[in-house]
Amino acid sequence: MTENADVIFIGNKPPMSYVLAIITALSSGTPKEITLKARGQAITTAVDVAEIARNRFVKDLKVTKIAIGTVEMPPREGETKSRMVSTMEITMKK
Amino acid sequence: MTENADVIFIGNKPPMSYVLAIITALSSGTPKEITLKARGQAITTAVDVAEIARNRFVKDLKVTKIAIGTVEMPPREGETKSRMVSTMEITMKK
Repeated sequence: MTENADVIFIGNKPPMSYVLAIITALSSGTPKEITLKARGQAITTAVDVAEIARNRFVKDLKVTKIAIGTVEMPPREGETKSRMVSTMEITMKK
Repeated sequence: MTENADVIFIGNKPPMSYVLAIITALSSGTPKEITLKARGQAITTAVDVAEIARNRFVKDLKVTKIAIGTVEMPPREGETKSRMVSTMEITMKK
């Protein structure tokens, strides 16, 4: 991770809030790497955010890396088994 | 696309149906490339399927490529605007 690298965690806000976070992070003008991190259902949102950002707002934004993985989450209240949740990281560079 | 390449379209069935499709496709024993294609909410399912398949069933399955994109879908009934939908392709090789 370099100094010019930002991580944006994708949750359940509307995609445009995260797109705005990307635009803000890039507004300094210096080349920058941005990584979107998402888990479970938010994975779809992460893909939407990356696509909206590079198609509509930041034309020279390039997706440099996409990684998928799994994390073990503690059981929900009232449950006893821990759950496996898929994760995704999308790294983009301008 | 080579002869030993299969495409599995991910929809809204439970992830295990698609995992089973992967196992079946690989059962011939010859090296093979499998691409999972998904759109919209099914993107999360595609990641789940890839992770379940390689962590639990086919240990030597490697993710070789992940691509994201956007397609324009015709408007739903009663709507006039076409919608942009995110897509994802996960290519795996054994």
